[in-house]
Amino acid sequence: MTVTIIGLGLIGGSMAIDIKAKGFAGRIIGVDSNDDHAAAAIARGLVDEVMNLETAVTKSQLVIIAVPVDRTRLLIPEVLDLINGNTVVMDVGSTKAEICATADEHNKRKNFVATHPIAGTENNGPNAAVSGLFEGKLAIICDPEKSGSFALELVRRLYNTIGMNTVNMNSKEHDLHAAYVSHLSHISSFTLGLTVLEIERDEKTIFELAGSGFASTVRLAKSSPEMWSPVFIENSNHLLNALDAYIEKLMLFRKSIKNKDASHLYNLMKEANEIRRVLDGNKLTEVKAVI
Amino acid sequence: MTVTIIGLGLIGGSMAIDIKAKGFAGRIIGVDSNDDHAAAAIARGLVDEVMNLETAVTKSQLVIIAVPVDRTRLLIPEVLDLINGNTVVMDVGSTKAEICATADEHNKRKNFVATHPIAGTENNGPNAAVSGLFEGKLAIICDPEKSGSFALELVRRLYNTIGMNTVNMNSKEHDLHAAYVSHLSHISSFTLGLTVLEIERDEKTIFELAGSGFASTVRLAKSSPEMWSPVFIENSNHLLNALDAYIEKLMLFRKSIKNKDASHLYNLMKEANEIRRVLDGNKLTEVKAVI
Repeated sequence: MTVTIIGLGLIGGSMAIDIKAKGFAGRIIGVDSNDDHAAAAIARGLVDEVMNLETAVTKSQLVIIAVPVDRTRLLIPEVLDLINGNTVVMDVGSTKAEICATADEHNKRKNFVATHPIAGTENNGPNAAVSGLFEGKLAIICDPEKSGSFALELVRRLYNTIGMNTVNMNSKEHDLHAAYVSHLSHISSFTLGLTVLEIERDEKTIFELAGSGFASTVRLAKSSPEMWSPVFIENSNHLLNALDAYIEKLMLFRKSIKNKDASHLYNLMKEANEIRRVLDGNKLTEVKAVI
Repeated sequence: MTVTIIGLGLIGGSMAIDIKAKGFAGRIIGVDSNDDHAAAAIARGLVDEVMNLETAVTKSQLVIIAVPVDRTRLLIPEVLDLINGNTVVMDVGSTKAEICATADEHNKRKNFVATHPIAGTENNGPNAAVSGLFEGKLAIICDPEKSGSFALELVRRLYNTIGMNTVNMNSKEHDLHAAYVSHLSHISSFTLGLTVLEIERDEKTIFELAGSGFASTVRLAKSSPEMWSPVFIENSNHLLNALDAYIEKLMLFRKSIKNKDASHLYNLMKEANEIRRVLDGNKLTEVKAVI
C-alpha cells in the first residue's frame, strides 16, 4: 500500500517510521509546505519520496493529514476532492468538532476518518520523530458513524499496527473533555514558564532551584506555538470555560494562602490528590493482583 | 558516626538508605511521631533503631530534621537545647527564611546548618523512600556564614557522599526564588488536578484523554498536603506575588483566546518556549561539545 503523509512533523514523522517498520505501507510519500522539513524527512529516511500534494494524493490508498488543525480544515475538502472512491483520508488533530463539521459538508465524507492519537512529546518537527511513540497508547476515533466501514477498518488496522487501541467518541464530547484534560494543561504550563522567566532574570537561579517537579510541570511550555495556537482558538468556547474553572480554583488557593488557612489549604490539596487514584488506577489494580 | 533522622518520610528515609549504604553513618537512629511510619522504617531497614527524640539526639553526632517546615521551626530550639558542643543539626525544609530566623535566636546557632536538597518525588512516607534520590542533584545551603565551619564541613561531606553538589544562598533569596520555581509549580498542578476532577465526573474520560502531557503537568497534584500546606503558609508573601504574576499571565492567554488573537497567542507561547533553553542549557552545551 502507498501512504501519503501530509505534514512531516513529530506525529506525521513518527507514524512514518512505525508504519514502514511494521510493513503496513510499502511506500510512503511525504508532503510538506516547509522545504527544510521535507529535506530533513528524506535525509532521515522517514519517507521514500517527497511530492506535491496533488500528485501524492492521487497515488495513495491512504492519506494522513498531520498538520496544525486550522490547516487541516482547509486541506480536508482539497484532499477529498482529489481522491478516487476507495482512498481513505484521516487526520490526527487535537480538536475534532470543527474538523468533523468541515468533513460533513463533503460528498466523500465516508472516505474520511477523524482521529486523535493521544501521544506526543514537547518536541516538534521531523527531527523529533521517534519510533514507538504510539506504542501502548490510545487513539480516539470521532463520529465513526459518519465514516464508511472500509475507511474505519483501515484506520483501526493502522493504529493497531503501531501499537494503539482505539475508542470511539463524539467529536463535540471529545473537544469538551480535551479542553480540560489536555488544552488546559498546556495553558497552565505555558503560563508557568512565562511567569518564572519574567521574574527570574537570573537564569542560574532557575537552574539551581529547578527540581524534577518544576521540570515536569513546565515541560509542556516547550510545545510548538504553531500547533497549539490554532487548537486553542478552535476550541475556544470549551477552553474559556475550563480556564474560568481553573482560575476559580486558583483563587481558592490564593485566599487560603492569604488567610493562612492551613486547614482549607490542606483540604484543597487532599481533594486534588484524588487525581493519583484516577491516573494510577490501572497500576494499583495490577499491584493488588500481584500481591 | 551515629546519625539521628527526625521524620522518616520520603526525604528522611531516602537519606537513611544512602548514608548507610555509603558508610557515612555506622548507626542510624530514627525518630517519628507517627508510630506506623516508625514501624515501617524499621521493617524496611531504613534505620537501625527507633527512639524518643531526647535519647536519640543525645547519642548522635549529626541530627537531620526532615519534618514539615512548621514542625521544623518548633523542633530547632528543642534539639539545639539537647545537643552537646560538637553535635551538628541540619534541616532539609523547602522554605528557609523563617527556619533561619528561628535558629538565629539560639546560642548554639553555629551548630545548625539550614539546607534544602532539591530532590523529591510526588510520593511520601517511609515506603516512598528510595536509594539514589539525591544522586547528581543540588543541595542549597542557606546563610552559611551563620554556621560553624565544623558544621558546614560535615553537612557538605554528607551531601557529597550521597551524590549532591552544594551551593550557598541567602535564606530570604532562597524563599523568593523557591516561590516561583517550586511552590508556584505545585499550586498550578494542584489547581489543574482539582479543575479536571470537578468537571470530569466520568473518570474513564480522564483516563482515555490523559496523555503523557497531562500526567506530567498534574504529577505534583499527588504531593503531600501535610508537607506543602506549611510551606505555602510560611512563604505566603512571596507566593502571593508569584500567584498574582501567574494570574496576570493567565489572563493574557484568556484574552487572546477570547479574541481569537492567533498572533498574540503565538507570541506568548514562543516567549514561554524560552524555558527550554534554560532547562536544557547544560544538555545543549554538551551536545555542541560532542559535535
